[in-house]
Amino acid sequence: MTDSVQLLGISNAIVDVLAHVDSAFLDSIGAEPGSMTLIDKDRAHEIYNQMGPATEMSGGSVANTVAGFANLGGSAAYIGKVRDDQLGRIFNHDMKSLGIDIRLDKAEDGAPTARSHVLITEDGQRTMQTYLGACLELGLADINEATIGAPKAILLEGYVWDIAEGPALARKAVDIAHKNGTSVALSLSDSFCVERHRDSFEEFVRDGVDIVVADEDEVMALVETHNFDDTLKALDGYNNLFAITRSAKGSVIIHGDEKVVQPAAGVRDIVDTTGAGDAYCAGFLFGWANGLPLSHCAQYGTHCATQVIQQLGARIEPGLLDGFEAR
Amino acid sequence: MTDSVQLLGISNAIVDVLAHVDSAFLDSIGAEPGSMTLIDKDRAHEIYNQMGPATEMSGGSVANTVAGFANLGGSAAYIGKVRDDQLGRIFNHDMKSLGIDIRLDKAEDGAPTARSHVLITEDGQRTMQTYLGACLELGLADINEATIGAPKAILLEGYVWDIAEGPALARKAVDIAHKNGTSVALSLSDSFCVERHRDSFEEFVRDGVDIVVADEDEVMALVETHNFDDTLKALDGYNNLFAITRSAKGSVIIHGDEKVVQPAAGVRDIVDTTGAGDAYCAGFLFGWANGLPLSHCAQYGTHCATQVIQQLGARIEPGLLDGFEAR
Repeated sequence: MTDSVQLLGISNAIVDVLAHVDSAFLDSIGAEPGSMTLIDKDRAHEIYNQMGPATEMSGGSVANTVAGFANLGGSAAYIGKVRDDQLGRIFNHDMKSLGIDIRLDKAEDGAPTARSHVLITEDGQRTMQTYLGACLELGLADINEATIGAPKAILLEGYVWDIAEGPALARKAVDIAHKNGTSVALSLSDSFCVERHRDSFEEFVRDGVDIVVADEDEVMALVETHNFDDTLKALDGYNNLFAITRSAKGSVIIHGDEKVVQPAAGVRDIVDTTGAGDAYCAGFLFGWANGLPLSHCAQYGTHCATQVIQQLGARIEPGLLDGFEAR
Repeated sequence: MTDSVQLLGISNAIVDVLAHVDSAFLDSIGAEPGSMTLIDKDRAHEIYNQMGPATEMSGGSVANTVAGFANLGGSAAYIGKVRDDQLGRIFNHDMKSLGIDIRLDKAEDGAPTARSHVLITEDGQRTMQTYLGACLELGLADINEATIGAPKAILLEGYVWDIAEGPALARKAVDIAHKNGTSVALSLSDSFCVERHRDSFEEFVRDGVDIVVADEDEVMALVETHNFDDTLKALDGYNNLFAITRSAKGSVIIHGDEKVVQPAAGVRDIVDTTGAGDAYCAGFLFGWANGLPLSHCAQYGTHCATQVIQQLGARIEPGLLDGFEAR
């Protein structure tokens, strides 16, 4: 079995609704700064009605990574559920325009395409209030030999566990992937998400996942530690390749006895941290998919994350690797 | 009769779909750089399918002005036709969130909400391919004593002449406005639009319009001249207040014997010229609505335009006049 792509993303397909707010706004809606909260349709209307003018752009954590991977020059495919509405058409357009193979048809009925209200405060931090809509209808039937194919890797996100059939479809995807010699990567999404699904993640990481991409808070939540040294010790018990981002402290790659410590790049002006982890993941996996050493993968990831925090919006631009050389 | 607002805009309600393109893309779709072309639904699909990933935000020339006017602290209302679809709800949300009084209900059926594909080239220039959709269904019945009220001024745009009942509804709006002591301002939209409707504009400016806000190309198209000196002479024959923008040459205000020459401000980095004229109009009318001398109105306009060309997106941000003093 062959597949034309290097990376297949499976995730929640979301349109971001971005607006600048002050911290009083977060207080007024009871949102913890920096958190991602799942909200229902009524609450989504309520928050949107209180928000200022917004900008809409395609988002979703792993969808951002897949888009970034394609923009770096990688070949990619995507599985996510949108409704056949204007936001769903926007989402699919933006992916297809990067050459990404969209493997599911838009839903003709059901809940509308998901949107995440991304509230950006003066410090560049993002607080997300996410209505999952059509994403909740992604089901086991959407995952099969035809939609998975045989890419070099599939990439799942922790947020998939927030949908009803999420754990089951992740397992089904892994089974198909491993049968076809495809590697499995998992982005842990956010530490609250890890806390919501820790036991299932733990089992899945130990049995199914080859590569974990996550920030240090997420990894600490997974292995139940409270500082980074203890975390590194705890990871001794895992066989996975871990790529762990640490914000200003850079990133650390662990794979068995191999350990790469990658410092962060200097940044003049942080505009918006949205998508930093997704961009890192795109760069890292692009290096990995092209067979580069882990130290180069880490440099690619850092380079991508550094760009994305200096712009408004979560997706990296094309041409980012022009002139860039890992060393 | 009283009205709570200073400015009522009547215009095409459009969601912008913004993307960076190279000039080869403009060639490939046969678009003249810097132009605004009206396209039908099929052509809109075709162009969108060829475009890269985009960002969606509320737009429309006079709608941008009204939003800017509200963001400067003015009170505003708006008449424009959107469909009750996701883009229509986005458009209305963004206006309402600025405190703008939306005076028409969303259409339950008919064409979808309008969108303009705004193609931004490396030089910051915009080329627009606009599908008017629901805007074409704005009709005479939408213009009445209740929707017009008695604001200090109404602001129409030349683009309204591109819709079937446009000239008739503009005339009806003017008749209601003047009966209520409301002034009438007209933005000439673009020089091609002026050429499409010159005779009707000429008649309307001479009989109905108090204030014309336009760039020099548009005014030249209106008075059929080929240089600015001849244009100024031709304007001797008009009683209107003209606020004429001239890009890097600043702006000139003419009202009878009064003439104000306002230089442009220095700009470090032009990001996107979209909305410069709309922002100027917002600042100018904000000064005018607050009874400031024309020289101050021109400085307000310049200040607003200067900000908007240094950002991606056509609408000016709140707080822009904080610390700003006309002198």
